[in-house]
Amino acid sequence: MKPSSVIRLAFTSLLVLATSGTIARAEDLLPSWNDGPSKKAIVDFVAKVTAEGSPEFVPVAERIATFDNDGTLWAEQPMYFQFIFALDRVKVLAPEHPEWKDKEPFASLLKGDVKAALAGGERAMIEIIMATHAGMTTDEFDKTVRDWFATAKHPTTKRPYTEMVYQPMLELLAYLRSNGFKTFIVSGGGVEFMRGFADKSYGVPPQQVIGSSGKTKFEMRDGTPVLIKLPEVNFVDDKDGKPIAIQRIIGRRPVMAFGNSDGDLEMLQWTAAGAGSRFCLFVHHTDAKREWAYDRDSPIGRLNKGLDVAAAKGWTVVDMKDDWKVIFAVENQ
Amino acid sequence: MKPSSVIRLAFTSLLVLATSGTIARAEDLLPSWNDGPSKKAIVDFVAKVTAEGSPEFVPVAERIATFDNDGTLWAEQPMYFQFIFALDRVKVLAPEHPEWKDKEPFASLLKGDVKAALAGGERAMIEIIMATHAGMTTDEFDKTVRDWFATAKHPTTKRPYTEMVYQPMLELLAYLRSNGFKTFIVSGGGVEFMRGFADKSYGVPPQQVIGSSGKTKFEMRDGTPVLIKLPEVNFVDDKDGKPIAIQRIIGRRPVMAFGNSDGDLEMLQWTAAGAGSRFCLFVHHTDAKREWAYDRDSPIGRLNKGLDVAAAKGWTVVDMKDDWKVIFAVENQ
Repeated sequence: MKPSSVIRLAFTSLLVLATSGTIARAEDLLPSWNDGPSKKAIVDFVAKVTAEGSPEFVPVAERIATFDNDGTLWAEQPMYFQFIFALDRVKVLAPEHPEWKDKEPFASLLKGDVKAALAGGERAMIEIIMATHAGMTTDEFDKTVRDWFATAKHPTTKRPYTEMVYQPMLELLAYLRSNGFKTFIVSGGGVEFMRGFADKSYGVPPQQVIGSSGKTKFEMRDGTPVLIKLPEVNFVDDKDGKPIAIQRIIGRRPVMAFGNSDGDLEMLQWTAAGAGSRFCLFVHHTDAKREWAYDRDSPIGRLNKGLDVAAAKGWTVVDMKDDWKVIFAVENQ
Repeated sequence: MKPSSVIRLAFTSLLVLATSGTIARAEDLLPSWNDGPSKKAIVDFVAKVTAEGSPEFVPVAERIATFDNDGTLWAEQPMYFQFIFALDRVKVLAPEHPEWKDKEPFASLLKGDVKAALAGGERAMIEIIMATHAGMTTDEFDKTVRDWFATAKHPTTKRPYTEMVYQPMLELLAYLRSNGFKTFIVSGGGVEFMRGFADKSYGVPPQQVIGSSGKTKFEMRDGTPVLIKLPEVNFVDDKDGKPIAIQRIIGRRPVMAFGNSDGDLEMLQWTAAGAGSRFCLFVHHTDAKREWAYDRDSPIGRLNKGLDVAAAKGWTVVDMKDDWKVIFAVENQ
């Protein structure tokens, strides 16, 4: 063999190795995704925006991916987990609040009647959140959240809430990060609640968690500064709040955005409207057996207008039943 | 020589190499800092929190350093540069606002009388900022800021504003990053104004810039979503606003914090109160010849209470005249 042939052969082998390496890599990193249009759309998009020299190449610094949390990264049924946390806190705090026995929505809650408590609508919900998320320092709240996660169990699966995260989405987060993406959570959930598990469960550090927040007050207590959580809403990170928060906090338009409800629609629209290639995806809850099935009429995580827009725009819609080999890391038996 | 001696000698040489390598590295990365107590305090602190096995070791994920901008990373005299930007914009926008000819503070400004314009105090200042920072999309504002930076010149030095950044602080930012720190700006300046140069000038990406902000509105314009800047204050990132924003956006207490005025005091107090080793530093403007000299009585960048607290707590106070070999990358001739 001539030396030039040897070099060519070596080079070809290297290319083959490199190429098959890339393919194997996507497969390895997304093992819980069935082969199908959703997985293909994700892998094809990531391949084209990360290929140097491609007209659709996106530099690493601009690779921002934003994820809704409830219903996108973990379950949200039979009600938002943060709300279950609040209900648990009402029970714990009740001895310090004898007046709750005669005051709605607390009176009904303490009798175990969540439905009656929530008859007061959004107003009742906010009262419950404020009573359980304010009046303490941010450090104290953080500890309360972490203690709750360590022991609380989901009402129907009886598993810790941190086991209610979607295995395919964990793989997707890691896959995107391995391709240079910075992964952010942009959720209607409380930012300080989500930080209590996001780092450990999702590998998303606190500064990449964006959420709703209450106002806080800086105060010196015996010479030590503390931040007190006030019973006042600061920002609701839902619907139009999502692009507003993305612009204010990230300051760059996402290249990829992931949601599961109409509350995520504006985030996806804002993402899609950016120059160059963008990727938008809805997780569609279609699996009543392994998870829950709901969409257009659900009071929690309603996906109605979003389904229409996704169809019109050609966005990816994950069919949980068909697209996901497993839903949770620890499957129901 | 016995084999064990050879190994010991090799090991010792390696240690010497490694150690001198570290020392050389700090020297190389902070060439504009004179040897003295400020530089020593910085280098000693970084060495101890990055030494694995040290009782004061801080894991990389927790290495957060926050920097004020005006007067800490770049100059702030004879007035905040963002305010000069606003004054320039008033002139550009005046033809679209014939009513400004008879309306303060605009009338005085257009006659070139800044002092009379500012006689209206904070109210006048806010009116000027709102008139020039609202009523456009966030993308349009971003372009306006970048265009301004490309051509505007500082009134006394006649240099571009991006040349008014402090060379020793640029080196410090890079030095901290090379030691695993994530560097954030936490400034009273407008977040979208600072993003117009922070990435290029400081190497601080948009998602690590925290500042004051106005409210924005999400709107569909011919099917395309835009964010409109409203003439309404959303958040003032100054004084107690700094720890509040740090908690809300970063979600982790800084390990090191850098400021230059009483507006940074709460950020430094919040930082100092964290568990383990923390580092707080004020830049003290002491060099009337190469920059400006001001502190306790200055209307801009007042450093009064901060000097007392720093002395009491043993925080580092940079004496610009003695500690910095050069102030700007391009020195005054």
